[in-house]
Amino acid sequence: MPDHFTIEKECAGTGGRVGVLATAHGPVETPAFAPVGTQAAVKTLSPVDLTGLGAQMVLSNAYHLYLRPGVDVIERMGGVHSFMSWPGPVLTDSGGFQIFSLAHLRSIDDDGATFRSHIDGSEHRFTPESCIELQERIGADIIMVLDECHEPGERDYAESALDRTHRWAERCVAAKRREDVRLYGIVQGGLFEDLRERSAAFLSALPLDGYAVGGLSVGESKADMLRMLDATAPHLPKHKTRYLMGVGSPEDLVESVHRGVDLFDCVLPTRIARNGALITRTGRLNIRNARFHDDPAPVEEGCECCTCSNFSRAYLHHLIHTQEMLGYRLTTIHNLHALVSLTAEMRRHLLNGTFPQFREQFLRDFTPTDEHVRRHNREARTKRLREKPESF
Amino acid sequence: MPDHFTIEKECAGTGGRVGVLATAHGPVETPAFAPVGTQAAVKTLSPVDLTGLGAQMVLSNAYHLYLRPGVDVIERMGGVHSFMSWPGPVLTDSGGFQIFSLAHLRSIDDDGATFRSHIDGSEHRFTPESCIELQERIGADIIMVLDECHEPGERDYAESALDRTHRWAERCVAAKRREDVRLYGIVQGGLFEDLRERSAAFLSALPLDGYAVGGLSVGESKADMLRMLDATAPHLPKHKTRYLMGVGSPEDLVESVHRGVDLFDCVLPTRIARNGALITRTGRLNIRNARFHDDPAPVEEGCECCTCSNFSRAYLHHLIHTQEMLGYRLTTIHNLHALVSLTAEMRRHLLNGTFPQFREQFLRDFTPTDEHVRRHNREARTKRLREKPESF
Repeated sequence: MPDHFTIEKECAGTGGRVGVLATAHGPVETPAFAPVGTQAAVKTLSPVDLTGLGAQMVLSNAYHLYLRPGVDVIERMGGVHSFMSWPGPVLTDSGGFQIFSLAHLRSIDDDGATFRSHIDGSEHRFTPESCIELQERIGADIIMVLDECHEPGERDYAESALDRTHRWAERCVAAKRREDVRLYGIVQGGLFEDLRERSAAFLSALPLDGYAVGGLSVGESKADMLRMLDATAPHLPKHKTRYLMGVGSPEDLVESVHRGVDLFDCVLPTRIARNGALITRTGRLNIRNARFHDDPAPVEEGCECCTCSNFSRAYLHHLIHTQEMLGYRLTTIHNLHALVSLTAEMRRHLLNGTFPQFREQFLRDFTPTDEHVRRHNREARTKRLREKPESF
Repeated sequence: MPDHFTIEKECAGTGGRVGVLATAHGPVETPAFAPVGTQAAVKTLSPVDLTGLGAQMVLSNAYHLYLRPGVDVIERMGGVHSFMSWPGPVLTDSGGFQIFSLAHLRSIDDDGATFRSHIDGSEHRFTPESCIELQERIGADIIMVLDECHEPGERDYAESALDRTHRWAERCVAAKRREDVRLYGIVQGGLFEDLRERSAAFLSALPLDGYAVGGLSVGESKADMLRMLDATAPHLPKHKTRYLMGVGSPEDLVESVHRGVDLFDCVLPTRIARNGALITRTGRLNIRNARFHDDPAPVEEGCECCTCSNFSRAYLHHLIHTQEMLGYRLTTIHNLHALVSLTAEMRRHLLNGTFPQFREQFLRDFTPTDEHVRRHNREARTKRLREKPESF
């Protein structure tokens, strides 16, 4: 097998780098943002839509696919690519996050985790070994170790969870069988810089193909998130992928690329799209707002996505207002295009040596969503999730 | 203006005919089925999807567009074509059917109808004149007269409603201003053959561009529907379009083309698609059925729609089961393609002189949905509609 990750250029003034991931289903040029297709479908989009907006890789989820449609079905259909008719690379998350957040966790021990399905309450068990087998049978190009995810909290718990995550990572490495599949570790350690550093160092010693930073973007402040990233990135092997899980707001992408992150995924652009919130270069715009009801302009002037090329704000306002499914699809296309094209633009600036200036200009123009609003939205979402988990 | 409807060929053995409708936004080859985009969007589909499945014309609805987004907005966006980014012909229904079924009718008099919006209860009034002005401002290529729709019932009521519909048709003709817009009349008369005949004769004397048959497919038996069609079609001008409103089951399309119908619209293919019911040449197939959970075959072997070309029954089963919006879109594409391609196939057989044999073979292979099931579904739908009208 050739090298999985090749660095093409490093930024002189920042930690940023440009690279290519080689996978069994084609390359991924980095920095890259991967849309999330939790249940083997990026919500509202077809594979042709994804190609059209420039997506290179799609993320799916072992926990969800294991429960529905089940791995036997996916295997019989020739694997996840053929099942969902997506020819490009697929990354599956192990489901660690879902077991600890979405499912009803029954017990966790050194061997694995027992949980109840969020769909029908049936009991299931994941071990590091079963989780690797599951993802290899699903047929993803890049798979993730099983980790113990927890909310940022007390040090004692963070430390014992970290030790377990590390032992599980060793077992995942040993359990891997498929040569054409790449396995990434997940750095944990809560909001403790020394634990993050310890985790990065421990996992770096394992023969993994890439390194995710997990347990961030789960409610902490942006300053805390960047502080943890600063504590982690320098301790990861330079020539392996760095993947920041669950991060998807534009300003976080720019700041993380600045710190040497290569890969991102997040449900944010697709989830907020279905609520009418649209990502622009100056911040979020809510298309439900009455002032858009007769606005003939596209969502963003100069945007080349197929939504902005064909439809007005007034039409999108009408579709979202009348709950037409086409509206959710058109807003999803715009938001994913916004992030995918942002990573492509950062790539060009990194290659041209103009990334530091780009970053400065971007952060000057962009107004992030207020932290209070973010916290309120998160709490409302958590409440909804508890009441109606299938909407997650 | 050139002739609106040109007959290219008539079937020797049946009433069937092949023609072309000329409109300001291009031709429609008949027989044709027009997908319904009630709120300026065919549910779940984009204009590119519609072109891809072979749709030639889209139907929209003056009542719905009048309420949301309002005619001012559509006019400011350059008309309905530009608003929804659909370059082909658009037909708007007048909203007569909606005023009598969906809205809360307050009063009807010889001058017009006063109703309350199904959305917010606000009071509105349509007259024949305002309804024509409305549709001309929306910018449809083909518009419909305002008619009094009612459930099949007593003769006295059917007769007085018919008289009013006729007087309104005369006023619609007088109110029309735009030269580039075509106006169709609507034959009513309930389930009374002599009233249907009287209506066809009355409207034939008016300078209308085409003739719809209304008030059918509203709960009567299929035998009654065909009986009414037999009583109507022979009394309509041969060289004008014949449009059967609200009819969209495959066997009805074949039987109606046999009786000389040129144009159809119906929400059936899109509505049942969102419930997982798929139209095939042998009848309906419900993709929710457990036997499809690992079926690698397409919905229908040989079908050239983009759903069948790319996705398995197992994947569609999974998407519908997990309520992924992509599933509703893929099933909608298949069902609309099924009807659009059925009309295209009938056109070829009419041109080749093989339509009688095709009809025989089709009706032998196809198992229509059981009348009891149809009635049950209709009653359940009516109940849902009363409880939650916006889902209509």
